[in-house]
Amino acid sequence: MLLLVLYIIAITAEAMTAALAAGRRDMDWVGVCTIACVTALGGGSVRDVLLGHYPLTWVQHPEYLWITAGAAILTALIAPIMRRLHSLFLLLDAMGLVVFTVIGCQIALEMKLPITVVLLSGMITGCAGGVLRDILCNDIPLLLRKEMYASVSMLTGALYLGAQHLDWHPYVTLLGPMIIGLSFRMLALHRNWQMPRFVYRDEWR
Amino acid sequence: MLLLVLYIIAITAEAMTAALAAGRRDMDWVGVCTIACVTALGGGSVRDVLLGHYPLTWVQHPEYLWITAGAAILTALIAPIMRRLHSLFLLLDAMGLVVFTVIGCQIALEMKLPITVVLLSGMITGCAGGVLRDILCNDIPLLLRKEMYASVSMLTGALYLGAQHLDWHPYVTLLGPMIIGLSFRMLALHRNWQMPRFVYRDEWR
Amino acid sequence: MLLLVLYIIAITAEAMTAALAAGRRDMDWVGVCTIACVTALGGGSVRDVLLGHYPLTWVQHPEYLWITAGAAILTALIAPIMRRLHSLFLLLDAMGLVVFTVIGCQIALEMKLPITVVLLSGMITGCAGGVLRDILCNDIPLLLRKEMYASVSMLTGALYLGAQHLDWHPYVTLLGPMIIGLSFRMLALHRNWQMPRFVYRDEWR
Repeated sequence: MLLLVLYIIAITAEAMTAALAAGRRDMDWVGVCTIACVTALGGGSVRDVLLGHYPLTWVQHPEYLWITAGAAILTALIAPIMRRLHSLFLLLDAMGLVVFTVIGCQIALEMKLPITVVLLSGMITGCAGGVLRDILCNDIPLLLRKEMYASVSMLTGALYLGAQHLDWHPYVTLLGPMIIGLSFRMLALHRNWQMPRFVYRDEWR
Repeated sequence: MLLLVLYIIAITAEAMTAALAAGRRDMDWVGVCTIACVTALGGGSVRDVLLGHYPLTWVQHPEYLWITAGAAILTALIAPIMRRLHSLFLLLDAMGLVVFTVIGCQIALEMKLPITVVLLSGMITGCAGGVLRDILCNDIPLLLRKEMYASVSMLTGALYLGAQHLDWHPYVTLLGPMIIGLSFRMLALHRNWQMPRFVYRDEWR
Repeated sequence: MLLLVLYIIAITAEAMTAALAAGRRDMDWVGVCTIACVTALGGGSVRDVLLGHYPLTWVQHPEYLWITAGAAILTALIAPIMRRLHSLFLLLDAMGLVVFTVIGCQIALEMKLPITVVLLSGMITGCAGGVLRDILCNDIPLLLRKEMYASVSMLTGALYLGAQHLDWHPYVTLLGPMIIGLSFRMLALHRNWQMPRFVYRDEWR
């Protein structure tokens, strides 16, 4: 129940940031809604398709499609206000990341998949939506270049997996890793932490 | 039966326009055939994978692969003539869109999916092939920027869904929405109708 | 057994060349590992998703994920040495292509799919990883522009299919087509063979 509320906030936040990305590319309203749905629901869809976990979330709950499309159109309408809410958005976006990650881990746990796959399932759920958004906007995915997105997702997933083995209250198991992941993400943004890069210059191909 | 004939004309037309797009990017013959197959059969494949509707069309009917690849190679061979057939192509391309849309809706209806998903299934079948083509050609998908593609697809799907509830002759139920969608598309092209755009300039990410 | 050894060498080689591609785009370490896993395991994943062949290889054998990620990080660490191993890499990369192709054909054969789909399954397994890598790096896929990749894959697959009908020792059936395909690829690289291109200039869309 708590997770459902968090999930709906998360897809709304992802849809709104995606709509702004679409606006930066001068997309029309159909494009804005498409990018929003793909970003908010694409991570889960990629996970479900790869794990063979049918039916997909939005096939079972088409109302999520309306929520994301609605949030995207609302964002386009009130875009000027958005600028002032910048920091709120960063927070909501980070929340989306950790919520999606935990949901992805949960689903893979329920399918009794090996631990590596559980972690990866969390990362795919958390990050693939943003990668798809960047591909549709014809960018090199941001995930692969900077930001600690994937690292935050991996940390959150690992903590959640660890917490499963402790005999804590379900809310602690759920919220603990999320709060730590979220704080780490906000710290990383604030202090501009980055993963080391691998720079290679050589035209041998 | 009628739908099958229309489907084969539609994949041929999509393969031909895709081959021209590949030619604009100087692709080799393998690339031309790949782009043609992905554009003509990709929309249906994305739909089937997302809905878990196996086996895919071209796995069951590999002859469609030969039809699209053949149409693509033919197009490359007679490319100079293609220029004169410009308006015929726009018509065939629009026909492909409405035929794919109706087929996509039909399949989702047979699977007894919710109405939002039926509409979306039609839009994915109609539009995803072109989006994949643009991704492979390294463009921002045209669908998301201009053209009334998605809107035409949604209109056709909605009319088809509505017609299901009336007690009309199956051919009318099938052809009516297609003809209205097709006319709308040709009008949109002619009068240069566009969806309103959302333009947002701000580097907050 | 032999095929398993070849497969592991192949995913390692693919992961290493993918890591170098990621390094050319200044990706961070997460990006390097992602690109490596997608390139090495993506072709098989696309095939399995399209054919509905679940569970995917890396879900059943998550150790392959560790092998590819490990190979990618190793490559980033010893990148300067890589330059000298240029020709070894081209050989390993070509080996990956033919091994993946044969595995893809085998899986489709086991599923008793039509012969066109068996060939295509081999090509998808061999080539789709590289296409995904190029999409994530925001390039027009190399496959579609030059290189004889797809042609080598088709040749290898066709020879393997033909060899199935002869009553040869399994090792000959397996290795013969691979060796011919590999030689063809190395010759194509050496002599700079290319497929004819289709160049089309006209803005009619």
